[in-house]
Amino acid sequence: MSSQAYIPVAELESLVAQYMAAASVSKPNAEAIARALVLAEIDGLKGHGLSRIDSYSEQARTGKAVGDAEPIMTQTRPGTLMIDVCHGFAYCALEKATDTLPNMAKECGIAAAGLVRSHHAGALGQAAERLANAGTLALMFANTPHAMTAWGGCRPLFGTNPIAFAAPRRNDSPVVIDLALSEVARGKILAAAQKGESIPLGWARDTDGNPTTDANAALKGTVEPAGGAKGAALAFMVEVLAASLVGAHQSFEASSFFDGEGPPPAVGQLIIAIDPGAFAGTVAFSEKMESLAAAIEADEGTRLPGSRKAELRAAAARNGVPVGEGLLAKLNSIG
Amino acid sequence: MSSQAYIPVAELESLVAQYMAAASVSKPNAEAIARALVLAEIDGLKGHGLSRIDSYSEQARTGKAVGDAEPIMTQTRPGTLMIDVCHGFAYCALEKATDTLPNMAKECGIAAAGLVRSHHAGALGQAAERLANAGTLALMFANTPHAMTAWGGCRPLFGTNPIAFAAPRRNDSPVVIDLALSEVARGKILAAAQKGESIPLGWARDTDGNPTTDANAALKGTVEPAGGAKGAALAFMVEVLAASLVGAHQSFEASSFFDGEGPPPAVGQLIIAIDPGAFAGTVAFSEKMESLAAAIEADEGTRLPGSRKAELRAAAARNGVPVGEGLLAKLNSIG
Repeated sequence: MSSQAYIPVAELESLVAQYMAAASVSKPNAEAIARALVLAEIDGLKGHGLSRIDSYSEQARTGKAVGDAEPIMTQTRPGTLMIDVCHGFAYCALEKATDTLPNMAKECGIAAAGLVRSHHAGALGQAAERLANAGTLALMFANTPHAMTAWGGCRPLFGTNPIAFAAPRRNDSPVVIDLALSEVARGKILAAAQKGESIPLGWARDTDGNPTTDANAALKGTVEPAGGAKGAALAFMVEVLAASLVGAHQSFEASSFFDGEGPPPAVGQLIIAIDPGAFAGTVAFSEKMESLAAAIEADEGTRLPGSRKAELRAAAARNGVPVGEGLLAKLNSIG
Repeated sequence: MSSQAYIPVAELESLVAQYMAAASVSKPNAEAIARALVLAEIDGLKGHGLSRIDSYSEQARTGKAVGDAEPIMTQTRPGTLMIDVCHGFAYCALEKATDTLPNMAKECGIAAAGLVRSHHAGALGQAAERLANAGTLALMFANTPHAMTAWGGCRPLFGTNPIAFAAPRRNDSPVVIDLALSEVARGKILAAAQKGESIPLGWARDTDGNPTTDANAALKGTVEPAGGAKGAALAFMVEVLAASLVGAHQSFEASSFFDGEGPPPAVGQLIIAIDPGAFAGTVAFSEKMESLAAAIEADEGTRLPGSRKAELRAAAARNGVPVGEGLLAKLNSIG
């Protein structure tokens, strides 16, 4: 292990924003990226954290992501928004959506935003959590570049297509679910390949569609859906909601989120906000939610989804965020 | 195998409705039950088909389900409905919801209905499909009596909590997804127990929370979630959306759908309709949808979710529905 330094959260956000700005990313985009990546790093979701800064910079430099894009938001109906991300990074658009949807949901009972010509949405739970902090339930769907086959097929047609969900608690931070529909993250297979290790059977298939334990063959092939045919069916559902519905590239048309090559990925996202006041009522919902949470917490060995976040964030606020010295030197070289 | 007779669809619906009416189920409820059960039978979803008629009659007789209940629908906001099923059977309420939501979705862009004091929703895909036939995308969530634990727990807190999704096609019947979040249906475990067979490891746990191959121990215990922790997380999501949000019984509070004992199950459902006209536009959506469908169908070994339905229904319209002679004698004894 190389040594690490603990950097205060605000300072780290500022360093990341400067690093993005050096790749000609506009200030609002650079700051939104910094907030999202640093929070994912704190929450232990390193695949959506600081590990992304180099590929984001590269994409801004080659123009695969438009660094100074400003999202264009249009209210299409009383309960719906379309947001054209204009091939920029997604985070400013996601913040616009989560700032706007709660009031629309309170007006209409339910509201939704579709993001088109969009990019990597990072840790999806962050947007869902912001909606729950504003008192609404949240559902979010994102498609991602092709990595999984339709059930029984060979060709990677779907992304790992994550789903996020969040719901407000009475006196606690929201419950948050954020999961990709693949059996494992591609990052785990990449890590095995880098170490020259094999992977367990059931994680991936090779390019011929055969199950494989060879991490390199798996990286060229496809990842298995979580729960077999059911995960593949849900990935198809996400593909329709996040891409076909909003007019985005399907996963099989989308370029990689990881390198600066090719056209913009132009994927899509759909975010839904639901006001409990339009259903059971906010008080009754809160009572139901707390009794459900209590039943789960009373069952030994379980925990509520997202319950680790509060501790991780408190620790980061207290001690700063651990950053490897190589990365820190790189960030400091820009400032 | 006992012998079977092929009964024309309309005649079978009429026989089932009469059978329900004999258990003091009101005409509108009896007819809605008959439509739903016969269609599930035709679609090959026998667990939600004619196998239910005896338990439904029993529940109507004991008052666990109120046979003459009339659902009360209230528009709470421009985009939302609450439907009090009043402890009746769910099908009339589901039909009311799917009759009303498409226009609301066209007005608001997105609309949703919550069903409370509800009962078994049967094959969830049917309601989703009706919404897709009216031109909207559909998402549906239902909670069901307790059968699965929270991840890592012992106590059955969640139902098998199905999710359904449907989307319209240009010239074909809608794509429909309808899946429970358990690894297998409890019906399969019941069938194994009845034959005295063991079940594969990974289907279920015993009452102590240990994996089991003993079908009888499994029936007393819990079923495994599809996709492990991810399926359990999605079951929690459904629990919040279908029950906490609308003010229904959580799965751990709900009585069985199968017998006449105890209070009404009083579970909940949430149905969401989304108008593609408020996002990419109906023409652009349709083009995206057809190109996605074509990509899936071009990949050998795959098929679109719900694509078997059209053939099964055509066969039933042509030849009638096969009904075992024991069941048929029972149905005829009422008429």
